[in-house]
Amino acid sequence: MIDFPSKERLAHIVYESDDRASKNFDLALLLLILMSVSIVVLDSVEEIHANYGSLLYALEWFFTLVFTVEYVFRIWLSNNKRGYIFGFYGLVDLLAILPTYLSLLLFQTQYLTVIRALRFLRILRILKLPKYVREATLLSTALKHSQAKIKVFVGSVLTIVLIMGSVMYIVEGPESGFTSIPRSMYWAIVTLTTVGYGDIAPITDLGQFIAALIMLMGYAIIAVPTGIVSSELTAARLDENRQAKTPDAPGRPCPECGVQSHSEDALFCRKCGAKLDAATP
Amino acid sequence: MIDFPSKERLAHIVYESDDRASKNFDLALLLLILMSVSIVVLDSVEEIHANYGSLLYALEWFFTLVFTVEYVFRIWLSNNKRGYIFGFYGLVDLLAILPTYLSLLLFQTQYLTVIRALRFLRILRILKLPKYVREATLLSTALKHSQAKIKVFVGSVLTIVLIMGSVMYIVEGPESGFTSIPRSMYWAIVTLTTVGYGDIAPITDLGQFIAALIMLMGYAIIAVPTGIVSSELTAARLDENRQAKTPDAPGRPCPECGVQSHSEDALFCRKCGAKLDAATP
Amino acid sequence: MIDFPSKERLAHIVYESDDRASKNFDLALLLLILMSVSIVVLDSVEEIHANYGSLLYALEWFFTLVFTVEYVFRIWLSNNKRGYIFGFYGLVDLLAILPTYLSLLLFQTQYLTVIRALRFLRILRILKLPKYVREATLLSTALKHSQAKIKVFVGSVLTIVLIMGSVMYIVEGPESGFTSIPRSMYWAIVTLTTVGYGDIAPITDLGQFIAALIMLMGYAIIAVPTGIVSSELTAARLDENRQAKTPDAPGRPCPECGVQSHSEDALFCRKCGAKLDAATP
Amino acid sequence: MIDFPSKERLAHIVYESDDRASKNFDLALLLLILMSVSIVVLDSVEEIHANYGSLLYALEWFFTLVFTVEYVFRIWLSNNKRGYIFGFYGLVDLLAILPTYLSLLLFQTQYLTVIRALRFLRILRILKLPKYVREATLLSTALKHSQAKIKVFVGSVLTIVLIMGSVMYIVEGPESGFTSIPRSMYWAIVTLTTVGYGDIAPITDLGQFIAALIMLMGYAIIAVPTGIVSSELTAARLDENRQAKTPDAPGRPCPECGVQSHSEDALFCRKCGAKLDAATP
Repeated sequence: MIDFPSKERLAHIVYESDDRASKNFDLALLLLILMSVSIVVLDSVEEIHANYGSLLYALEWFFTLVFTVEYVFRIWLSNNKRGYIFGFYGLVDLLAILPTYLSLLLFQTQYLTVIRALRFLRILRILKLPKYVREATLLSTALKHSQAKIKVFVGSVLTIVLIMGSVMYIVEGPESGFTSIPRSMYWAIVTLTTVGYGDIAPITDLGQFIAALIMLMGYAIIAVPTGIVSSELTAARLDENRQAKTPDAPGRPCPECGVQSHSEDALFCRKCGAKLDAATP
Repeated sequence: MIDFPSKERLAHIVYESDDRASKNFDLALLLLILMSVSIVVLDSVEEIHANYGSLLYALEWFFTLVFTVEYVFRIWLSNNKRGYIFGFYGLVDLLAILPTYLSLLLFQTQYLTVIRALRFLRILRILKLPKYVREATLLSTALKHSQAKIKVFVGSVLTIVLIMGSVMYIVEGPESGFTSIPRSMYWAIVTLTTVGYGDIAPITDLGQFIAALIMLMGYAIIAVPTGIVSSELTAARLDENRQAKTPDAPGRPCPECGVQSHSEDALFCRKCGAKLDAATP
Repeated sequence: MIDFPSKERLAHIVYESDDRASKNFDLALLLLILMSVSIVVLDSVEEIHANYGSLLYALEWFFTLVFTVEYVFRIWLSNNKRGYIFGFYGLVDLLAILPTYLSLLLFQTQYLTVIRALRFLRILRILKLPKYVREATLLSTALKHSQAKIKVFVGSVLTIVLIMGSVMYIVEGPESGFTSIPRSMYWAIVTLTTVGYGDIAPITDLGQFIAALIMLMGYAIIAVPTGIVSSELTAARLDENRQAKTPDAPGRPCPECGVQSHSEDALFCRKCGAKLDAATP
Repeated sequence: MIDFPSKERLAHIVYESDDRASKNFDLALLLLILMSVSIVVLDSVEEIHANYGSLLYALEWFFTLVFTVEYVFRIWLSNNKRGYIFGFYGLVDLLAILPTYLSLLLFQTQYLTVIRALRFLRILRILKLPKYVREATLLSTALKHSQAKIKVFVGSVLTIVLIMGSVMYIVEGPESGFTSIPRSMYWAIVTLTTVGYGDIAPITDLGQFIAALIMLMGYAIIAVPTGIVSSELTAARLDENRQAKTPDAPGRPCPECGVQSHSEDALFCRKCGAKLDAATP
């Protein structure tokens, strides 16, 4: 603590997470983020706000100041200041502190609450562990691969929602809550996705019959995105499996005839019968 | 704009979408469709109808006239006029303009609203991009392949719905909303599909027990269509993978005739019988 | 119609469905079943019962008599009368006619309605088309294969339901509708299966927190049966694919060296270079 | 019964389940557990408690005494007493009997009900049949394999829940039940998981629009865990298949050393290098 670390060392601690100091920094940051988000969440509960409002307000300022110091630090440490400030992480870091300062200027501060909750996104920075990044990449690759399929699917869903919403608006009418086509479309989405609040529900016989059709459709339809993602992930998984297997037995070509991909327990070449080198698992 | 394009050129612009002009035409049409459908949707909201009703009415006539001109144009440009007029797209195009004209003759115009919403289907015409068509084909092939499985499945669901609906009608009776077997069947569908509005729900102990059984059944049953679609898509996906891989390893072209993608253990070209070079994986 | 068919011919018409007469018989039977079940369903609607009750009663007797004649016929035609009468189909056939006769003796006839609905199961007899049987077998094989997995899964679900039901009974208490552990377990099933009626819902903060945990669990859990069925069906599907491919190109063994499974476009043996016979797709 | 079994024999009966006596012991224990849990469940129903309370109380003491004897027995029979007492099963066994004794000391006994329900976990001990263990292992391996994927997924869900919860708290406000961010987050979970109680539901237009977006998101998101589990189980299933198949086609054993399962194109034995007979598919 006494001999002050170099700027390079500090940058390493702040931006990397591969040794003790940088991991501790990440952990401390994680705790600060979770606590500051908890304050936003708790402050929205009326009773807690009434009893501990001033304490939470003080804590809010404390976290804001800490994050402000961190923000200034990050700019100072960054090699590409412009890239940091206008990049995704820089903007999230700014949004994490701005609302508290703005609350001094504005009266209508409730909308700032949501922005404050965005602070939670800062956790993404910490979770840049290789393992999670690889998995997230795999998941998003699978989703990207099936992008066209998903677009076709979403298009079909929207078409069903629009047409079924219009039909139910005519069939049920305002008495059952189907007061307009947009509201009917809201109901159609609530039904198709099997959420089913029940705040709007058909009461006429014909309406219930059509609703039953939509539900059965939703039943079939929910199978499609699942099938798309499953097939992509299965394809990726089998690929991974295959790749994991091949390097384990990377070949052992026959020293005589060069034929490859002998089974792991093979002692002789299956083409020319020459003796193989011992497997090296 | 000044030298008027030929009829062939116009037909190309209207019916194809592979150069700039035809893509712009598609885009303009897409916007017109979305706007005209938005008007139908918005006009159903009482407040908007009260305040902007006449504006929306004027816009409705504007879009109808534009679509009418387009419809006449399409007939004029088509080589197979009969095929266009009585085909799917021709009928949808006609349905897109008819309701507005009919509204002059009829008083009870609310049912025309739904028909107007069918205008949305015209978007399908624009989405005939090869990529989406291929994916839609893939999806529908997967569904067609599993048609027999799906029929067996739907049959089982309907049997469960009928029998469970009858049972719950007897067990719960009209007090809990199970006023008739059709209504009980509606409830059974709402429950099996896990929508669960709660407008009708069992209140007796026995009814709740049977309902719990139906829910657990629905749990198992929802796995079936998903499994069917997943397995079909996975099979299709792995096929695609395999086909995609072969050209990736175009390996070992025949030194005589250049034919590619020989199996890994091939010693002779499968086309001309020439000896192949050894595999080089 | 005039020269009466032999008993063998009649048995063929009634029990098989591979020529015209037997298919027509099946179709007629299908219509009769659907109509008789429709009557049971419609008769449960109070308004219809009030207005058309006597007509439906007459139709009910008509269908019962037709089915009775058919039942007697089937016994007469059957080679294994005992096997038919006490087999699944024989019992369903008997249950299809018994309730109407019993209604003459009993006063409390409402319970007979459900039994009458079982008539619908007679459709199974008609659907014994080879295609559907094969698919149904495939589905049930997939389910049977994963039986042990499903039992483990159902056991886990029941454990969660029992323990979470007890916890919520203590946490929420009778005020929110959690009046007893059985009712709490009903709620837990409604929640885990994502049906979510909302007739019973937690209102305390702790209760809502626990409920949220159960929902997220249910989210994870619903993936398991789907995954089980998907994997079974995918395995079955890939098997089918493989089998479908091999017989399509059943070999074309090399006439010289006998090597098989040449690719479809191969002209020469990949082992010895001999000319292959032409493919015969 | 007269000649008393040895301690070893007793330990075998109690801890194993591979012969008649030990299986009978397991069955008896299973029945006792189910009955004692049933008592806890039934006693929570007010009517039953009012009418049969004292009977259930007596039975409760009977089961507790039996389980106490069993507990003491298990300690006596165990070779590793410390390991048993502080292991998972030992603690569950203790928790199964403790609440009844504690109820003599405490007045506020309702919380003991839940602990009593934990008795159900004792069933796990009995279900240690090899078949179920293997399947449970397979399932848990599949889940463990996809652990990182699941963590990424749960993280994304929590981020959506927090941010959407905050947004809906601002948009809807206390009038529609969104009284605080925690409650809004509860609603977001209820919606994302498609449970949809309807106890809290958006009523403003903007709120319903955002809710529809969340539902469609939930639709896409529910596909992810299913896809993860499906792909893992499919990979495991195909592996199993492959292993199961090799012995099925033991084909072409080496005429010299008898080694089996040579690859289809092998000409020489991979173990001893002897020439193989031609493949006979």
